[in-house]
Amino acid sequence: MPASLRSPLAIILGAIPGALARYYATIFLAGLFGNDLPYATFLINFSGCVGMGLVVTLATQPALMSPDLRLLLAVGFLGSYTTFSTYALEVTSLWRMGQLGQGVLYGLGSLGIGTIGVLLGSLIARRLTI
Amino acid sequence: MPASLRSPLAIILGAIPGALARYYATIFLAGLFGNDLPYATFLINFSGCVGMGLVVTLATQPALMSPDLRLLLAVGFLGSYTTFSTYALEVTSLWRMGQLGQGVLYGLGSLGIGTIGVLLGSLIARRLTI
Repeated sequence: MPASLRSPLAIILGAIPGALARYYATIFLAGLFGNDLPYATFLINFSGCVGMGLVVTLATQPALMSPDLRLLLAVGFLGSYTTFSTYALEVTSLWRMGQLGQGVLYGLGSLGIGTIGVLLGSLIARRLTI
Repeated sequence: MPASLRSPLAIILGAIPGALARYYATIFLAGLFGNDLPYATFLINFSGCVGMGLVVTLATQPALMSPDLRLLLAVGFLGSYTTFSTYALEVTSLWRMGQLGQGVLYGLGSLGIGTIGVLLGSLIARRLTI
């Protein structure tokens, strides 16, 4: 298959399960934790960041991950599983409802836990490949 | 079509163009602005937040947007077009490369411009529907 078709196909094959996983995980987590704070998006984005740390670290060893699989997992699946627009919408909604403290806590907390997630995924990948 | 199939189908129909638009926009914007700072993800996430503000505001009027179309655009397209995992990866990478200032600027700047994007989209939707 020509490379010009392989890349979009890999992304599509990752994006479909990624977006559906986000949708069903949101319903499940909102049922579990309620809607007082956006726990669902928070946990989805955190777990996606752990996955991103794992994938980009494993992808540094071509024997472990081909460029096509990296594209499928990182750009397709994780890119679609995690979301920035819903996150920004939820920060804005908390602020508009007068819950400024929660908005700032959720906004900065997601960013902080996202970087911790990337580092954690990277650490797990290194342990796995020693 | 039963509702249990309509929802995932709407999400898939949005997620495919959303993820592909992110991929090709990233290549185009990185070619335009270079890779010194993650301008591509920044601009993609900002534009997706404007879109999210537009869609959720228009969706408050059922005559303008059906629940299926809202799911296709907000959860499918914009959820997959914007990304949190690449954003967190880029913040972490800037920090690891010793560019702590740029990492904080990019991290907080994206969050700030994301909320401004949601408010801007919401404002445009209100102007359009008066």
